[in-house]
Amino acid sequence: MSPVGSTVSIVAVSGGVTAPRGFTAAGVHCGIKARGLDLALVVAESLSSAAGVFTTNLAVAAPVIVSRQHLAASGGRARAVVVNSGCANACTGHAGLEVARLMAAEAARALGCDAEEVLVASTGVIGVSLDPRTVTDGIIRAAEVLGDAGHADAARAIMTTDPFPKEHAVRVETPGGVFHVGGMCKGSGMIEPRLATMLGFVTTDATVAPELLRRALVDAAETTFNAITVDGECSTNDSVFALASGASGVTIGEPDYELLVEALRAVCQELALGIVRGGEGATKLVTVHVTGARTYDDAKQAARAIANSLLVKTAIHGGDPNWGRLVAVAGRCGSAFELSGARVVVGDTVLFEQGRPFDERAPEAAAHLAGRDVRVAVDLGVGGPEDATMWTCDLSADYVRINAEYRT
Amino acid sequence: MSPVGSTVSIVAVSGGVTAPRGFTAAGVHCGIKARGLDLALVVAESLSSAAGVFTTNLAVAAPVIVSRQHLAASGGRARAVVVNSGCANACTGHAGLEVARLMAAEAARALGCDAEEVLVASTGVIGVSLDPRTVTDGIIRAAEVLGDAGHADAARAIMTTDPFPKEHAVRVETPGGVFHVGGMCKGSGMIEPRLATMLGFVTTDATVAPELLRRALVDAAETTFNAITVDGECSTNDSVFALASGASGVTIGEPDYELLVEALRAVCQELALGIVRGGEGATKLVTVHVTGARTYDDAKQAARAIANSLLVKTAIHGGDPNWGRLVAVAGRCGSAFELSGARVVVGDTVLFEQGRPFDERAPEAAAHLAGRDVRVAVDLGVGGPEDATMWTCDLSADYVRINAEYRT
Repeated sequence: MSPVGSTVSIVAVSGGVTAPRGFTAAGVHCGIKARGLDLALVVAESLSSAAGVFTTNLAVAAPVIVSRQHLAASGGRARAVVVNSGCANACTGHAGLEVARLMAAEAARALGCDAEEVLVASTGVIGVSLDPRTVTDGIIRAAEVLGDAGHADAARAIMTTDPFPKEHAVRVETPGGVFHVGGMCKGSGMIEPRLATMLGFVTTDATVAPELLRRALVDAAETTFNAITVDGECSTNDSVFALASGASGVTIGEPDYELLVEALRAVCQELALGIVRGGEGATKLVTVHVTGARTYDDAKQAARAIANSLLVKTAIHGGDPNWGRLVAVAGRCGSAFELSGARVVVGDTVLFEQGRPFDERAPEAAAHLAGRDVRVAVDLGVGGPEDATMWTCDLSADYVRINAEYRT
Repeated sequence: MSPVGSTVSIVAVSGGVTAPRGFTAAGVHCGIKARGLDLALVVAESLSSAAGVFTTNLAVAAPVIVSRQHLAASGGRARAVVVNSGCANACTGHAGLEVARLMAAEAARALGCDAEEVLVASTGVIGVSLDPRTVTDGIIRAAEVLGDAGHADAARAIMTTDPFPKEHAVRVETPGGVFHVGGMCKGSGMIEPRLATMLGFVTTDATVAPELLRRALVDAAETTFNAITVDGECSTNDSVFALASGASGVTIGEPDYELLVEALRAVCQELALGIVRGGEGATKLVTVHVTGARTYDDAKQAARAIANSLLVKTAIHGGDPNWGRLVAVAGRCGSAFELSGARVVVGDTVLFEQGRPFDERAPEAAAHLAGRDVRVAVDLGVGGPEDATMWTCDLSADYVRINAEYRT
């Protein structure tokens, strides 16, 4: 193996979670939702290294509790992940924990492994019980149709209000051999991951020790799943799992750590941007870049505040280059800020600099905001060296409609 | 004077900022806005005690800078406040500061006092210059029509997207005499005051030393202007001013501090709730009460997070008693929280308690949410003694429409 950047290439390939060798997947309809696929399995041929990052919400859902326990009990090894949509199995008390354990046990029975080698995730409405017979039936049927081509159905089966499935995979060519990273995720509302995200599943056919995989997953998530926001919410169920089958024959050790992070990031970023593009009511992907910050935390705090600002998100929805709202958020977000040195750029157009507005350039900036992929950049004006990027979407009347009508 | 509660009564009266003796007011149209009143004066007959609390936004607007300087230079005394709507005079550089100083100087010339005895406030679009001749013309005309009845025009002249003017006044009867507190405010979007609010103006005819007035204003604001949110934003111009004319002949000293705070709070709370009721796109006033917190800060943090949650605000807009979203926000907000002890109440209906949902009661809770004044309460489940209240409004498609189209 060689370090990043020498003769390594990372190229996108098809195949989602089954692009890496050693994995099969399936998605079926079992009746948790009235219609549509609602149960997914991702299965490794043999016991694999496994890692997870989870929600920081203290109202933690049953499947998160069970997956954490299983990862600890197995020493960071897993054979499979079982996922349902249509029901979050959150705030469901002791009965909810029993159903989450049953899901692992039934998948283990179908696959011939220990229950502790199965990880569990759920997404959907909070506070509704998950019927044990329905989900058991789904697991049995999903296990029967596992295959290389199952990745697409699996990616559909984990959707709730998502407008489209989100998959990505890359092939990593190195002097030491070729390996793959694949993934799928879901998420549309209740999205502002802090140490986790909605549901994300990443596979690789590299051989990676569980502890190295965990560290790399945390690092890759920081600038991908943890750098997106749709509505500033952090769910009770947020989880990202990584499984490493080793089927490529390529071993990733400590010296290759940066390469591993880069490969995971390549997949996680595409998946994370897919969540934002498919955010509830979203019509635009907005890249928020903050520069000139004293510290990285200041940069990320300002980027997060801008990305969550209702006034910024509605202005962008309306195609309005309202730089004043960007300045106002930067000034209130708690990061070091100096108005006289601040700069606001929309697309490539500087609208405010050295205390002076350039409103005559507003039409140029408005033309940029009319597109679907838009960029805003704010320099905090204190001459610092740090920057950070967050991705968000605009806020539309459809967001309100979706969330005022979701449950009733 | 006597302590609070013995034989004191506080009753609502009409008259807004001129209900207290010793004040006149006016509101005129001078052309900052295309139509409608856009300039207000509130004037004390003689030099009065004055206090202000201001935005914590680091992108601070010119009128805030000037008012702070004038309060410091005058030792907490003022004769008048001059306010314009239609232009925030924020992010306008050196020229903006000059116009803010000119506003004070022109008002001082018309009233025959020092410029440092005039406070200044502006509200409207950020980054647009305020024309000196237009505003000077307005000040001269407003000074000509000052009167007791001018409070209503003044309250209209400070409006931007506000759907209605906000005034309130009370008469405070004590064994030591009768005094009044009156006020007006504006605010509809960019509302989440932290140490201040949009624009608020409170008058009293009690005699109060400047330092006592300042402390009481800060205390009264904490549970009123600082306990409301429309959209989680903190403006560049937020200011609340208090003027005490002493014209009632009643003197408030340190032993009467609690009475002073209570009287200010009576006016500030009505004004603050008016901001929320008139919040951009709002159809409901939502009272968020958090109980069982370990500390007051925990309680207020949780109440603020719930009051700012897009998912909570859209659910309430849709009349959906979605207690799961309330639990999810309480769990992620950073306050100590224990799911097994948590409780959610909508109106008077318990929907979640001791880890158990009561979805059969959802219709009763939905009936409560169909009203215009609605209440949600969350116990954090950790058995603490503290509680806090925040007021917010629902989030409607109209909010998006207003803010996507405000400037263009």
